[in-house]
Amino acid sequence: MAMQCSSFSFELTSSQENARSGVFHTAHGSVETPVFMPVGTQATVKAVTPEVLMSLNARIILSNTYHLHMRPGEKLIASLGGLHAFMAWNRPILTDSGGYQAFSLARLMKINDEGLYFSSHLDGSRHLLTPEKAVEIQEDLESDIMMCLDECVAYPSPREYVDTSVQRTTLWAKRCLDARKSANALFGITQGGVYPDLRVRSTIEISSLPFDGIAIGGLSVGEGHDLMMDALDVAVPHMPVNKPRYLMGVGTPKDIVEAVARGVDMFDCVLPTRNARNGMLFTRKGKITVKQARYRNDPKPPDEDCGCYTCRNFSLAYLRHLYTSGEILGSILNTIHNLYFYLELMSDIRHSIREKNFHDLRNQIKEMYDD
Amino acid sequence: MAMQCSSFSFELTSSQENARSGVFHTAHGSVETPVFMPVGTQATVKAVTPEVLMSLNARIILSNTYHLHMRPGEKLIASLGGLHAFMAWNRPILTDSGGYQAFSLARLMKINDEGLYFSSHLDGSRHLLTPEKAVEIQEDLESDIMMCLDECVAYPSPREYVDTSVQRTTLWAKRCLDARKSANALFGITQGGVYPDLRVRSTIEISSLPFDGIAIGGLSVGEGHDLMMDALDVAVPHMPVNKPRYLMGVGTPKDIVEAVARGVDMFDCVLPTRNARNGMLFTRKGKITVKQARYRNDPKPPDEDCGCYTCRNFSLAYLRHLYTSGEILGSILNTIHNLYFYLELMSDIRHSIREKNFHDLRNQIKEMYDD
Repeated sequence: MAMQCSSFSFELTSSQENARSGVFHTAHGSVETPVFMPVGTQATVKAVTPEVLMSLNARIILSNTYHLHMRPGEKLIASLGGLHAFMAWNRPILTDSGGYQAFSLARLMKINDEGLYFSSHLDGSRHLLTPEKAVEIQEDLESDIMMCLDECVAYPSPREYVDTSVQRTTLWAKRCLDARKSANALFGITQGGVYPDLRVRSTIEISSLPFDGIAIGGLSVGEGHDLMMDALDVAVPHMPVNKPRYLMGVGTPKDIVEAVARGVDMFDCVLPTRNARNGMLFTRKGKITVKQARYRNDPKPPDEDCGCYTCRNFSLAYLRHLYTSGEILGSILNTIHNLYFYLELMSDIRHSIREKNFHDLRNQIKEMYDD
Repeated sequence: MAMQCSSFSFELTSSQENARSGVFHTAHGSVETPVFMPVGTQATVKAVTPEVLMSLNARIILSNTYHLHMRPGEKLIASLGGLHAFMAWNRPILTDSGGYQAFSLARLMKINDEGLYFSSHLDGSRHLLTPEKAVEIQEDLESDIMMCLDECVAYPSPREYVDTSVQRTTLWAKRCLDARKSANALFGITQGGVYPDLRVRSTIEISSLPFDGIAIGGLSVGEGHDLMMDALDVAVPHMPVNKPRYLMGVGTPKDIVEAVARGVDMFDCVLPTRNARNGMLFTRKGKITVKQARYRNDPKPPDEDCGCYTCRNFSLAYLRHLYTSGEILGSILNTIHNLYFYLELMSDIRHSIREKNFHDLRNQIKEMYDD
């Protein structure tokens, strides 16, 4: 099943207007796009086994370099055969650079062209993350798709600051390319906040470099759906057609269909897994908050048309009972359902692009998920 | 696979000295003994799906009447088709009477021959549990094996108090039999603390009644392994040969093999599941505490000879990482391993009795688990 390729490749297979479907190949197998990557921050997609992930037909997951660098450390993981062996996941893994968490989770001490100085959220220890270090860590993890270190700015940020971050992101992108020693894929990341000219400049600069794919960074940081889409409208036309386009940290079902409509191929987000643990389920009929009293004696599954293990076996009344009782099984069953929803949505998106009826699905999702 | 019997039956199939193997039949299928019942307190065996329990070859589980009565309530469960349908578990379920938790978990207000007055551990609401009510709740749950309400006394308790509780337990046992309306099995429970003559009297009284099985109650409450075995030595010879004998709330691997050696057929205990969530694993080579620093970079599974999903796929280093990171998957994988260990131990016990070499297994477990 898994193609044994030593390097990354991508091909487009179908399109409808700007929406496109394709496939990329890695040493751990092929992945059809548009694709959603479940998030496995600490070398586990929370609340599910790799066996369950396989049964859900997850084709690739994301793991977080910052967390793994802090604990248990990439050298330990390398000594145990790399991240795939460590977590018993034999399909592709994309890792981020660690930069975003150094901003958002750790205490950022200083940033300059050398790199990011931060103190650990676990023990306060001081660290320096450089572009070279970010690549080295990801190579130790044996990530299939590595991400460049970039400077992700907060929203809103002053134009001058975003301008500086765009320059630094391009500088770092080149250093990441120079630092790569492996045949693993390396994706560049574009920045520019919500300033159209800075978005365009960053996109053109990063797209001119020999990356295997291009990510759109610095979005989904509080700017909202409309500004995010505006940024895509500005940036995507300047991205290479023949490389995968990855919108980092996105998003809601509506975000995803709208980004696909603009030509994006890859997504990751904690929403399906985190919301599951908080008792929020995604369905084709809208969101369900399982703790609500209205479900107290509801014998129906979350979605009678859903084929997931949870919906085939359990009632809303039972899921509510598990949630209110604080049972781990609640997190497990809700996670299974939400990942099934997201992964089936992506499968339907790919199918609809091939069948040239993507807009029906897009409109259906937009109506259901208007926030 | 499941035999459709409308009432409970039990037959012995093999024995070696006092140890015996057999099989009992319920409306939800047959169960070979000696058997261990994983505990599913709140209508879920913590951290695993019914699908996983099936794959572990769990044949019967225990659920706690007190918890289900408090939340979500047996009437709600009955309206949803009973406990099997509610939790999607189609194999047999044994329920306790709720009495033990009314003593140990709730705040016990008063006890007299009428029943137990207690206030809920959830909201402080006042409740009265009578023998009739205990049976009614369990019939609402559609339990395959119901347990009588008994008075379980603390250890140590004065002789006069234990004497009174033995009298009350027999009184309640008769009332439970009278209250039964269903064809579900009903087991009596013997008491008597560690007083040999009271144990004998209770065992004779309860054994004289038309129960489907006889439980040994009031043990595993702090008296320790040796006093527990002394009580079994005294009581078991007075129990019917042709009914299953159930040692409630027991226990460690050593407790189990020693009780089997004395003729006990059924066990339940939170040890494998609770210890799993605390990072303690049972193996044939002894206990493992996964958080220990010695496992930091250990590439070996908990037990290289174990065939469970956890041992076939994951290293101690990974399990330690999950535990120290507070990941749900740690609880899942540890629970899978510990239940596999317990259920395989029981399978080996049954096999060894049939093959007349139970003592080798007994000695092996006693050496490994001397506490």
